Amino acid sequence: MYQQKIQISTQGRGSYDITAEVQSLVGDCDIETGLCHIFVHHTSASLMLCENADPAVRRDMERFMSRLVVDGDPLFEHVNEGPDDMPAHIRSVLTTNDMTLPVKNGRCDLGTWQGVYLWEHRMTGQRRTITITVVD
Amino acid sequence: MYQQKIQISTQGRGSYDITAEVQSLVGDCDIETGLCHIFVHHTSASLMLCENADPAVRRDMERFMSRLVVDGDPLFEHVNEGPDDMPAHIRSVLTTNDMTLPVKNGRCDLGTWQGVYLWEHRMTGQRRTITITVVD
Amino acid sequence: MYQQKIQISTQGRGSYDITAEVQSLVGDCDIETGLCHIFVHHTSASLMLCENADPAVRRDMERFMSRLVVDGDPLFEHVNEGPDDMPAHIRSVLTTNDMTLPVKNGRCDLGTWQGVYLWEHRMTGQRRTITITVVD
Repeated sequence: MYQQKIQISTQGRGSYDITAEVQSLVGDCDIETGLCHIFVHHTSASLMLCENADPAVRRDMERFMSRLVVDGDPLFEHVNEGPDDMPAHIRSVLTTNDMTLPVKNGRCDLGTWQGVYLWEHRMTGQRRTITITVVD
Repeated sequence: MYQQKIQISTQGRGSYDITAEVQSLVGDCDIETGLCHIFVHHTSASLMLCENADPAVRRDMERFMSRLVVDGDPLFEHVNEGPDDMPAHIRSVLTTNDMTLPVKNGRCDLGTWQGVYLWEHRMTGQRRTITITVVD
Repeated sequence: MYQQKIQISTQGRGSYDITAEVQSLVGDCDIETGLCHIFVHHTSASLMLCENADPAVRRDMERFMSRLVVDGDPLFEHVNEGPDDMPAHIRSVLTTNDMTLPVKNGRCDLGTWQGVYLWEHRMTGQRRTITITVVD
């Protein structure tokens, strides 16, 4: 069992590749076979397992989400933190705050085209806390 | 390893804070560091990790979901259990039936504004079964 | 700890019941109480925990998703792999690539009406790799 907290600084809305950080931590903990759990300690940022080859995929993902959950939608009552705040909470709930990956041969056993992304949903940069736990 | 089943009675559609029940069970099992897994044994209720400070956030979440997945939508063929039944299945699939949280210092290590909610998607009250498993 | 990879051949878009395969693997590994983790190694297929009694539920799920994430939507920039490719990535992100189930009495402790489905989002058949990990 291994558990560590990391901090990621974001520069506003968008997805940030954290695959290398996660793989590095898993490599450090000497667990050959098991599970790696990733958890984001916020309700306006989330995790995404996404295609990692063509950056257009993540631009399309962002555009799709922006159209599905519209900033400043008059439906929203919770508006005091800005037009992007309630959409950030909804985007988090529609995606996920926790993700578990299989560990094999001492690293997260991802598919060839899978990357792990922290998805910042607020327009301004934030400091985000993530806990990584590896169990065997 | 610790596993226990709990029952939650809902009073119809809406989100119910189960954070205290979960933290209490984790506190009882004497596991300092590990993972806490929560599972809802139904396909018309789900789990949500949501902002816990302003109740308007959950009202907005409910309104957003009701507009996205419309009760009685003529698209639906599965209608024999009522206009809210198929939407309940879809809402569950768009959110999640299982959630894993890091355990640190003998409790779920949630962010300051994170609460764990059982989301009842049926209009009438139901008795819902949840399994909590804690691993170390 | 038990970990095994399985291959599922799909015949194009649709959901495929893998509950029996998962239960069989869990039965083989002699773990009475624990967690079963399922992971899909792709970004255009995902997992769904769905009502397993009325096949109309999954037909409605498919119709709902097809309307929510439209094939060939002019919004998309990533189109070189076909009109269903970007929608497949979005559908995966809106559902999930990993699922954890409680194990009790040597099998996944599912609700009466819960089935585990591999959801193929591409129009053509694919060979999909899934890793099952059981921890105790």
